[in-house]
Amino acid sequence: MESHLNIQKGGDKLPEMINRQFKRKKRKSLSVADYVQAILNGNIIVLSQAITLVESNNSEHQKVAQQIVNACLPHSGNSIRIGVTGTPGVGKSTFVEAMGEYVTNLGKRLAVLAIDPTSQISHGSILGDKTRMETLANNKNAFIRPSAAGDSLGGVARKTRETIILCEAAGYDVIFVETVGVGQSEVAVHSMVDFFLLLLLPGAGDELQGIKRGVVEMADIIAINKADGDNLEKAKYSRSAYRNGLHMFPAKDSGWIAKSMTCSAIENTGIIEIWQSILQYQQFTNKNEYFQNHRNNQAQYWLNETIQNQLKRRFENHPMIKAQLTTIKKEVQEGKITPFAGAALLMDLFLK
Amino acid sequence: MESHLNIQKGGDKLPEMINRQFKRKKRKSLSVADYVQAILNGNIIVLSQAITLVESNNSEHQKVAQQIVNACLPHSGNSIRIGVTGTPGVGKSTFVEAMGEYVTNLGKRLAVLAIDPTSQISHGSILGDKTRMETLANNKNAFIRPSAAGDSLGGVARKTRETIILCEAAGYDVIFVETVGVGQSEVAVHSMVDFFLLLLLPGAGDELQGIKRGVVEMADIIAINKADGDNLEKAKYSRSAYRNGLHMFPAKDSGWIAKSMTCSAIENTGIIEIWQSILQYQQFTNKNEYFQNHRNNQAQYWLNETIQNQLKRRFENHPMIKAQLTTIKKEVQEGKITPFAGAALLMDLFLK
Repeated sequence: MESHLNIQKGGDKLPEMINRQFKRKKRKSLSVADYVQAILNGNIIVLSQAITLVESNNSEHQKVAQQIVNACLPHSGNSIRIGVTGTPGVGKSTFVEAMGEYVTNLGKRLAVLAIDPTSQISHGSILGDKTRMETLANNKNAFIRPSAAGDSLGGVARKTRETIILCEAAGYDVIFVETVGVGQSEVAVHSMVDFFLLLLLPGAGDELQGIKRGVVEMADIIAINKADGDNLEKAKYSRSAYRNGLHMFPAKDSGWIAKSMTCSAIENTGIIEIWQSILQYQQFTNKNEYFQNHRNNQAQYWLNETIQNQLKRRFENHPMIKAQLTTIKKEVQEGKITPFAGAALLMDLFLK
Repeated sequence: MESHLNIQKGGDKLPEMINRQFKRKKRKSLSVADYVQAILNGNIIVLSQAITLVESNNSEHQKVAQQIVNACLPHSGNSIRIGVTGTPGVGKSTFVEAMGEYVTNLGKRLAVLAIDPTSQISHGSILGDKTRMETLANNKNAFIRPSAAGDSLGGVARKTRETIILCEAAGYDVIFVETVGVGQSEVAVHSMVDFFLLLLLPGAGDELQGIKRGVVEMADIIAINKADGDNLEKAKYSRSAYRNGLHMFPAKDSGWIAKSMTCSAIENTGIIEIWQSILQYQQFTNKNEYFQNHRNNQAQYWLNETIQNQLKRRFENHPMIKAQLTTIKKEVQEGKITPFAGAALLMDLFLK
């Protein structure tokens, strides 16, 4: 474990002195200030280690992680955070790779954070992911990091949000948060990004299969991917159908009108247009002040969410509640007591 | 107060003996068993009084109310609960009146519960409502009851759900829960009804003005009201637009495919077709067992919701939290601490 976490190589952007210092120190002897300095210098090895601390459930690690995150906080925020979602098979990785190549060529620094709450992500699948995004993985201006999963959604959300802060402090100015659009994760992702991109396959009505209700409505762009070869006509049809149908959704708080576009990550078409729409969105929402207000609201949302989750956890772990919750749930289920009477009984137990 | 709550008239469905007993007793001397018996006998005066107890914030009233509701619970459930929403001006009252006349003529007994969380409902507006639904108010098979508002949404939700139970025990087999589609109330209503009907005005794209995001997606029927006179063509156009556009929404858990229809409450057209679709929905979801599963899930939902709300209230009323919450919210807002660090600080205060 320790050798894995030692500084082994990299850190070539650090001044030689700091670099030497890191090389000599074991991870445990790195101070919070060391971490922060290295992150601000763009040292991706230290950045990765800090993210590992953020993801750790060990309370000592958590303590250090919180200090690092708080110290990085004033240096964060200078990015556009883009959520990318879509069902498995829609070509998210290929899309992110194509978009990533394009934006890094523009001189941007890109961080890709992938959340998959439906499956455990082992170190093996980190490699798996790197294989899937081979070109991007070798791009020195891109940083790819799958999330640690197998945790509560609330946990993943906190970890991803704090990872965004660390990446921004490390100078990444485009953040992709990639998720599978089939679970609850996309709601969480939507609550931590500035812009939400939904990738769909060309189709005639069944292109939404597997997409959770509410996700279409969150989208700032619906991009019909794989608009190439035999699929091109079908993709154009889907684009029009969505273009016509998008008026069914009430206006967004941002004032932005969602767009329906086509792209082919493989043929590299539509990528520029999507990026330009994202920039247009950024300009538009900067002008009407939604951009910053939305981020502030998101912070309040996560404050409330976290409090609620922790209160709930504390309630559920209470010995009296543990003993009675199943019984009362069953009685509510069977219509023997109302949900409100059930809740009142449980609250009485909790408060005694 | 007392004279208002006395039994004054009505109760003509009660056996003469019980009726005489009620006439002699002041409200305070009515036992829970008296209430329940009268409700089961369909005595609308006692039903109204029981609802008043359910709506009361007085803890003595609450205690009695809970006993009445629990005793009525085994006699509840034999109705179809229909949520009706739409912006002000869409003609909800006229629609409910037209639909109400139709279903009571079929021999059904109808209860109309109106929730308006955006304004205080005084006794005056109960009269106001009766004026708005003049025919229905004089229909002996219809019972109209506006909700007590000016309360938290959670409170209104509990009260409405418990009122549904009382009305079902009193033999009402069609329950309309009417709400304005502009606040958060329609989400709460959606979580307590079997079927959700969205009324829209004829229009070309702006018919959703004022409708909250997510509401369209909840609808089992979108009914374009006021499809009469000069509006008829526009209404037909809207219906087609929604019909084409509804495929944009992922499949509902119920398996039901939302319908887009037109109606005119004033000319009494489309009312029968909507009612038949509601029956069709009921058959369909009885067959695939969604109907009862959904009600069970709703009960669990309200159990969890109520616990969460009460934990939150307890947290917010804690003296240490009261003293610090604003400060910490501000620091989160200004990006001085992360929402997660803010939540951790507050939880520490709460637990000490």
